[in-house]
Amino acid sequence: MNKGGVFIISGPSGSGKDTLIVRLLEKLPELRFSISSITRGMREGENQGEKYNFITREKFEDMINNGELLEYNTYVGNYYGTPKAPVVKAIEDGCDMIIEVDVNGAAQIREKLTDAVSIFIMPPSYEELKARLSGRGTETEELIDRRMNSALGEIRRASEYDYIVVNDDIDTAVNDIMSVILSQRLKTERKSYIIEEVLKKC
Amino acid sequence: MNKGGVFIISGPSGSGKDTLIVRLLEKLPELRFSISSITRGMREGENQGEKYNFITREKFEDMINNGELLEYNTYVGNYYGTPKAPVVKAIEDGCDMIIEVDVNGAAQIREKLTDAVSIFIMPPSYEELKARLSGRGTETEELIDRRMNSALGEIRRASEYDYIVVNDDIDTAVNDIMSVILSQRLKTERKSYIIEEVLKKC
Repeated sequence: MNKGGVFIISGPSGSGKDTLIVRLLEKLPELRFSISSITRGMREGENQGEKYNFITREKFEDMINNGELLEYNTYVGNYYGTPKAPVVKAIEDGCDMIIEVDVNGAAQIREKLTDAVSIFIMPPSYEELKARLSGRGTETEELIDRRMNSALGEIRRASEYDYIVVNDDIDTAVNDIMSVILSQRLKTERKSYIIEEVLKKC
Repeated sequence: MNKGGVFIISGPSGSGKDTLIVRLLEKLPELRFSISSITRGMREGENQGEKYNFITREKFEDMINNGELLEYNTYVGNYYGTPKAPVVKAIEDGCDMIIEVDVNGAAQIREKLTDAVSIFIMPPSYEELKARLSGRGTETEELIDRRMNSALGEIRRASEYDYIVVNDDIDTAVNDIMSVILSQRLKTERKSYIIEEVLKKC
């Protein structure tokens, strides 16, 4: 059986990445989605095991010490990480796995999984990014500046990725991500069985 | 401006490659198609410059000596080759170019154009290949065997290609080839302008 592929998806706040991933998972329901382990408290509307597994600091530090994470980071005093086991299982099951992660996490995963394919979601322009991060015009200039700096810092590292998908029109962007995933399934190393299949009678 | 991509498409007789390419060019009319130079005579239904440029042996040997061919071969005493100039121009114009060529030609092109992406069109099974090569049942066993051996010889070299597209259902196969071409357009080296574009105001 052929192995599954790992697809790292990153993009700054304002790239529309979250909506894209929801749409992608609707279009390709066979995709698995990596659930992050995090130590912050659950917020309203969040459910255990949906997008995150909410765990204790002790449990998280055990996972670090046991090498059970593909990547992790801290943010405002909390841990965020990607458990390794479900990703390894997806690869072995021949299923494709989506990992949504920031530029630092992506760099850590690339070092461990050299076959991982990475996709950076890009806003169409500086102006559009600023408009999206300004919200409904109720935010302070300072907050908008802070968000812009953070987003631009991620965009400066977009060249570390294999593919860049510009999210101007959402349908186009979802189709673009799909073409990356579908083409990866056609790679010769994932299709070698068909060569043997057709030749077996010789 | 970003450079165009070169897509080598090969597949044995019985793979349905020709029909796939016609459909592909209908779906993505912006694609350019490499016209082979050949020295055999024109057959009924063929037109100068459509799929082939019919040229003299002298002219062909001049092209060989001047290094104007990306690849060439002889078949039943005639020369067949891919002129370099239109391919170089497509790359510079930022246009994608399709080159339909056999496994030997593909190997020659790969050596010269290391960025070329190659796709092998595969029949779905040994039985289906044999059925397709048997025609309407009016062929001799010997002729069918000869066709099978030639096709299987090409299939043995499928692993030299980047992608394998199985042509069972033609719509699926055309979409598969499209996903390879479209995903290639999203490669970071072809999208670097958008990073600069979004960052330019910083």
